Amino acid sequence: MDTFMQAAIEEARQGRDEGGIPIGSVIVHEGRILGRGHNRRVQQGSAILHGEMDAFENAGRQPAAVYREATLYTTLSPCSMCSGAILLYGIRHVIVGENQTFMGEEELLRSRGVRVEVLDDATCIEMMRDFIADKPELWNEDIGV
Amino acid sequence: MDTFMQAAIEEARQGRDEGGIPIGSVIVHEGRILGRGHNRRVQQGSAILHGEMDAFENAGRQPAAVYREATLYTTLSPCSMCSGAILLYGIRHVIVGENQTFMGEEELLRSRGVRVEVLDDATCIEMMRDFIADKPELWNEDIGV
Repeated sequence: MDTFMQAAIEEARQGRDEGGIPIGSVIVHEGRILGRGHNRRVQQGSAILHGEMDAFENAGRQPAAVYREATLYTTLSPCSMCSGAILLYGIRHVIVGENQTFMGEEELLRSRGVRVEVLDDATCIEMMRDFIADKPELWNEDIGV
Repeated sequence: MDTFMQAAIEEARQGRDEGGIPIGSVIVHEGRILGRGHNRRVQQGSAILHGEMDAFENAGRQPAAVYREATLYTTLSPCSMCSGAILLYGIRHVIVGENQTFMGEEELLRSRGVRVEVLDDATCIEMMRDFIADKPELWNEDIGV
């Protein structure tokens, strides 16, 4: 297991243990984690802090040159909002834990030149399956359904 | 002038007066402002609080049925991140102050069935022209350039 995907999974687990939605993300630049985060819908009543957005926010204001050489790791296929943030900042490489429980905007990202790798990681799949079975309404709210 | 676009412009002006980027937004549901906001890059060191994102955050957690009947007003054509949030939450109507100083993802929104109206408002254009002339580096940072 990639150490950075492991860090994203740790974020997701932390979110779950806080009673939140178990999705985590890290943004990596030159082998170092620039920002890490997890979904904060429950914890902060936030409509915009998905895991990836929280990682962007925690990475803070960065120069365009940094984003362009960065890789974003996320435990779940990124939704349209998080994919839009990836496009805004010109992140060119995205590593996705799984897309079986939710298929995000991977095709849009690829059509704009982003390299998207999907790991089909069993831990990520199980975490989301358990969560969706446990709290389907909360999950639907998070994806605008 | 539409009273809701006027509220978005007031948000933009407030941002400008705080030394920030002059873009504002309001989300309206059944004739009432649900959330309003402005860009907070400078004020909070935020990479994700564009005007529209700040309006979503201030509107808080809403049911899908509310978003679907809501209209988002923004003084500037929405970037990929904010357009992605509009798509995530199924906002079907977006009113844009202007797209002359920055063309966002209007075509993507329209291709997904969102009605996008552009007002070509002189106040919005002038505010952004003045800001970009004054602080080009800050503007480029905000749009990932």
